[in-house]
Amino acid sequence: MDRAEHYAAANRQREKVEPKLEGRTVINLFFEDSTRTRTSFERAAKRLGADVINMSVATSSIKKGETLIDTAVTLNAMHPDVLVVRHGDSGAVKLLSQKMNCAVLNAGDGTHEHPTQALLDALTIRRRKGDITNLSVAICGDILHSRVARSNVHLLSAMGARVRLVAPSTLLPKSMEVLGAEVFHDMREGLKDVDVVMMLRLQKERMQGAYLPSQREYFHFYGLDYEKLSVAKDDALIMHPGPMNRGVEIDSDVADDIERSAIQEQVEMGVAARMACLEVVTANLDSWRKENAQ
Amino acid sequence: MDRAEHYAAANRQREKVEPKLEGRTVINLFFEDSTRTRTSFERAAKRLGADVINMSVATSSIKKGETLIDTAVTLNAMHPDVLVVRHGDSGAVKLLSQKMNCAVLNAGDGTHEHPTQALLDALTIRRRKGDITNLSVAICGDILHSRVARSNVHLLSAMGARVRLVAPSTLLPKSMEVLGAEVFHDMREGLKDVDVVMMLRLQKERMQGAYLPSQREYFHFYGLDYEKLSVAKDDALIMHPGPMNRGVEIDSDVADDIERSAIQEQVEMGVAARMACLEVVTANLDSWRKENAQ
Amino acid sequence: MDRAEHYAAANRQREKVEPKLEGRTVINLFFEDSTRTRTSFERAAKRLGADVINMSVATSSIKKGETLIDTAVTLNAMHPDVLVVRHGDSGAVKLLSQKMNCAVLNAGDGTHEHPTQALLDALTIRRRKGDITNLSVAICGDILHSRVARSNVHLLSAMGARVRLVAPSTLLPKSMEVLGAEVFHDMREGLKDVDVVMMLRLQKERMQGAYLPSQREYFHFYGLDYEKLSVAKDDALIMHPGPMNRGVEIDSDVADDIERSAIQEQVEMGVAARMACLEVVTANLDSWRKENAQ
Repeated sequence: MDRAEHYAAANRQREKVEPKLEGRTVINLFFEDSTRTRTSFERAAKRLGADVINMSVATSSIKKGETLIDTAVTLNAMHPDVLVVRHGDSGAVKLLSQKMNCAVLNAGDGTHEHPTQALLDALTIRRRKGDITNLSVAICGDILHSRVARSNVHLLSAMGARVRLVAPSTLLPKSMEVLGAEVFHDMREGLKDVDVVMMLRLQKERMQGAYLPSQREYFHFYGLDYEKLSVAKDDALIMHPGPMNRGVEIDSDVADDIERSAIQEQVEMGVAARMACLEVVTANLDSWRKENAQ
Repeated sequence: MDRAEHYAAANRQREKVEPKLEGRTVINLFFEDSTRTRTSFERAAKRLGADVINMSVATSSIKKGETLIDTAVTLNAMHPDVLVVRHGDSGAVKLLSQKMNCAVLNAGDGTHEHPTQALLDALTIRRRKGDITNLSVAICGDILHSRVARSNVHLLSAMGARVRLVAPSTLLPKSMEVLGAEVFHDMREGLKDVDVVMMLRLQKERMQGAYLPSQREYFHFYGLDYEKLSVAKDDALIMHPGPMNRGVEIDSDVADDIERSAIQEQVEMGVAARMACLEVVTANLDSWRKENAQ
Repeated sequence: MDRAEHYAAANRQREKVEPKLEGRTVINLFFEDSTRTRTSFERAAKRLGADVINMSVATSSIKKGETLIDTAVTLNAMHPDVLVVRHGDSGAVKLLSQKMNCAVLNAGDGTHEHPTQALLDALTIRRRKGDITNLSVAICGDILHSRVARSNVHLLSAMGARVRLVAPSTLLPKSMEVLGAEVFHDMREGLKDVDVVMMLRLQKERMQGAYLPSQREYFHFYGLDYEKLSVAKDDALIMHPGPMNRGVEIDSDVADDIERSAIQEQVEMGVAARMACLEVVTANLDSWRKENAQ
């Protein structure tokens, strides 16, 4: 987090940074489209002086029937230093990482985890609130399909925040309660006195059958507007990982609230957090490789 | 134009140029496919030492329902220095530019403008003819759908050329006459004694209903062949922004005329003109940012 | 081959290499998808310090009806130093190369040639076997559709190997016998006492009508398993250009055989071989250009 803060300041001032990844090669391997995350990682890696190679599923030999493991083995033979992976299946990144002799960063896998998103969210909160300990954070909406929610529950809880989950029961997995998060089904109860309101994107494309609310109905019960927000603390921070469905999970005016919305800052912190991650995972890469060489 | 000339000479000699964009980041944001323009900008930016990040609509979160403004705000938070935008809607680039704290270059928006194309065309004409003032330039063909035509009418008129538009009335917007361009419906009249013949691509993909001529019919009346060209000046320059429909709007032999066709040189000047644009828009970027900071 | 060996050693040690392509621009022009080959060339070019511009058919103006020659002329006017081309039509790369004032590398054209694949295969064999002369190499499977097979027959024969082709007659072109390769229709006969078994991918997507075997039937007769492999030499090398159809043309355990499978090493040698090719074709580029300038 401290390194990310350092980079955030340098990025905002558009200052040169030490090219810690000079001579390193980062491969962005994206099996799902994602403007934000891929661009953010590419920006971060280039800013640190790395060579970046983008691979998207559309140009991948997965289409020709190659297995995920073969893809990993193939890429590994090209000796990259960091592999950044986005994949539609939970666990796919871990599987890949076991075959790679380089650092692997999870850029989102299925409904499982999106750790750099949690890091940038924590960074944004820390910058705005000073300290995460004892903050009350409500994560609201489509938690069932959200790797962002999962990673944030883990990280924010570990950093001392009290995390609440606010969602209809049909959009809540049962396992979240185990993590110690308090569960609410009503926004007015769930947002009461919270310091941070983190809205999630309604992932319409992941919903199959089951519960598919009309957008108007969804907004009525779970969309963040000023009325629902009024029960939170006066200076409650408004967050959203993007891309937003305005008018579905968040009211446009709330999203653009100059004082309280941190949505732009989240994107900004994304580059900084990923720079820090890239620095950290490559710092000990050479010694790690020596230890792991047979 | 003078800076573009400078870069044109360096490019042809494959000489090193001063890396004026070193440490700068250029994002190519293309909502429409375009080999030529994207590659030309990428070549130009890299030649000046910039980091380049390509974003195409296929991998964009526009598909997930994000608004154009949110895309702008997201990209802005990544602190690029230049955003190069191609978009299918007229005015979209201007809309984006209002949200960006960086230089924005229009790489073609809808049927509205394509300013760097006009600059490279003007540069090509100046190199071949020495001076643009008082030259007679005929822009011919599908003017209705052509942002290239619009930008050239503006620029070439401003530089003192007399611009003629030659097209069937169904492929002419009414507003062009207002710009002071003389309108012809017959190629033999329109090309009479002109110094430059600029053909446009018949944009079949943009035509909906209305007037869809057969390609043979179109070529008969508006395709440039040696017979129609014979009424122009003997040394009339032949131009086309590409990609060409050979045998539709231009005869293959005319397109490849070694003496008079400047079509290859237009592509070459594209890189040079864009290098000059990138240099110009970034030269005062830092002071502009200071002035615009609140 | 010696330069490729040099780079292979440097790559494996992740050592810096002399940036022989600094200031050079490599354009990867891919009319067919190919993860491996495009990434391998990009990795190789960047490792040598080149600027790399990727162009895929999806974003190409070929869709707008431009001819291949016009694409060549357009790219040529951007003054690249190397054009790497993958195309679905046999002969397309040669056609392009005639219009380019730069080095052109064939990254696979139709069913014709894939020369850098043959180079990396030869390099892999040489590293494992010490010398290629008098080795017996069996190339097995879908030879009819395989540019890999063609290029390997040429190169390995020229280097002194005895090349065998093993395939059903429906997957064999007649012209291969002319090249001096011995033809077999039975795996147990074809693999007898060979030093190298090179399996080919069954290119289901290229088969139209004619002979389309069931995968189970194909594996029974032509899939490489330990039983068929047992007639080859004890230390026979197992190769495959990838991507593999496991269980179709090769048994999974055979593909992953730690002692004998060289499949990962082939990918590794791909980057090294392409670095050597890029070095060679650019070494004399400037003097070649001077000679060819009019």
